[in-house]
Amino acid sequence: MKENTRQKLIDATYEEVYSKGYQGASLKDILQNAKVHKGSMYHYFANKKEMALAAIDEKISQRFDTRYGRILELDSNYIDEFFKGVKDLSNRDFNRGCPVANIIQEMSNIDDDFRITMNSIYKKFKDNLEKILDKSIQKKEIKQCDKKKIALYITSTLEGAILSAKASGEAQDYIDTIELLEEHINTLKI
Amino acid sequence: MKENTRQKLIDATYEEVYSKGYQGASLKDILQNAKVHKGSMYHYFANKKEMALAAIDEKISQRFDTRYGRILELDSNYIDEFFKGVKDLSNRDFNRGCPVANIIQEMSNIDDDFRITMNSIYKKFKDNLEKILDKSIQKKEIKQCDKKKIALYITSTLEGAILSAKASGEAQDYIDTIELLEEHINTLKI
Repeated sequence: MKENTRQKLIDATYEEVYSKGYQGASLKDILQNAKVHKGSMYHYFANKKEMALAAIDEKISQRFDTRYGRILELDSNYIDEFFKGVKDLSNRDFNRGCPVANIIQEMSNIDDDFRITMNSIYKKFKDNLEKILDKSIQKKEIKQCDKKKIALYITSTLEGAILSAKASGEAQDYIDTIELLEEHINTLKI
Repeated sequence: MKENTRQKLIDATYEEVYSKGYQGASLKDILQNAKVHKGSMYHYFANKKEMALAAIDEKISQRFDTRYGRILELDSNYIDEFFKGVKDLSNRDFNRGCPVANIIQEMSNIDDDFRITMNSIYKKFKDNLEKILDKSIQKKEIKQCDKKKIALYITSTLEGAILSAKASGEAQDYIDTIELLEEHINTLKI
């Protein structure tokens, strides 16, 4: 029951912050959507900020795991499987954009706690991608390359693709950017 | 004198919104930094929103012109000149990130006026880049290609590069992403 209350707060906070940004997020609306009283919230979180940081960290980790988590456990096809995850639109919301990028853009230059948390989330994604590239090199699927730089490049282009779709309101802009990115990365294949 | 007051408001609004986002921007601080009284502001703008939209539109147009405006008037080297602009770090602020992306991320899904303005600014950048690619094709510097898609791809990757640098606090992440992007685009050269 206790865990249930905490989870409801995490879920509602994530949705509110994803939609409106951290500064625009209303604690009143979060509590209303979570159906939790303010007093109960204080059993779990000291304030809105602590709750938002926890929500972002936990929900984003979950998203990454769902989308890319199993790739490192495979025996082959690392790059194709990664792009399968990238191209799966079922859990993407181009109207709201990338929940990670949104908060970096909004908060990283004005609040150190957000800067540190978002830096760590972004780094986790790049590091995981670097491991995927490493596996692919080990299996001789792609040639030797600067894994760290390629992981950064893919991450940047992926983030930009989401932004382009949010800017234009056209999911096709995401699809087109990713198509060219995949073509480019496929030139590394042996 | 009148124009001077308006320009002071535009400059101060742009800086405040760039640093803190639109929702986080304080009208009081803007007026203080512009050294303009609230009453005078209403001669030029109906409210904070109208002033912010004008500031973003005008200042970003200016930035684009300074950085990329003269390229279309050149006789050759379109792609190299474009990347010279991209790689010029003198007017970039990775701490605050991309002023266009920041506002798209923050506002495009919650306010129609912002969505329309930011869509138009983003499109202007892509369209200009498409024209640069077209000039380059006409001059047989690069081979025939899907200009629209390549312009979108470059724009996405460029935006992602700025985000990556803001996320990590490392300008090198921008430089490295752009290096790979330029290598990729150079494969189109004849």
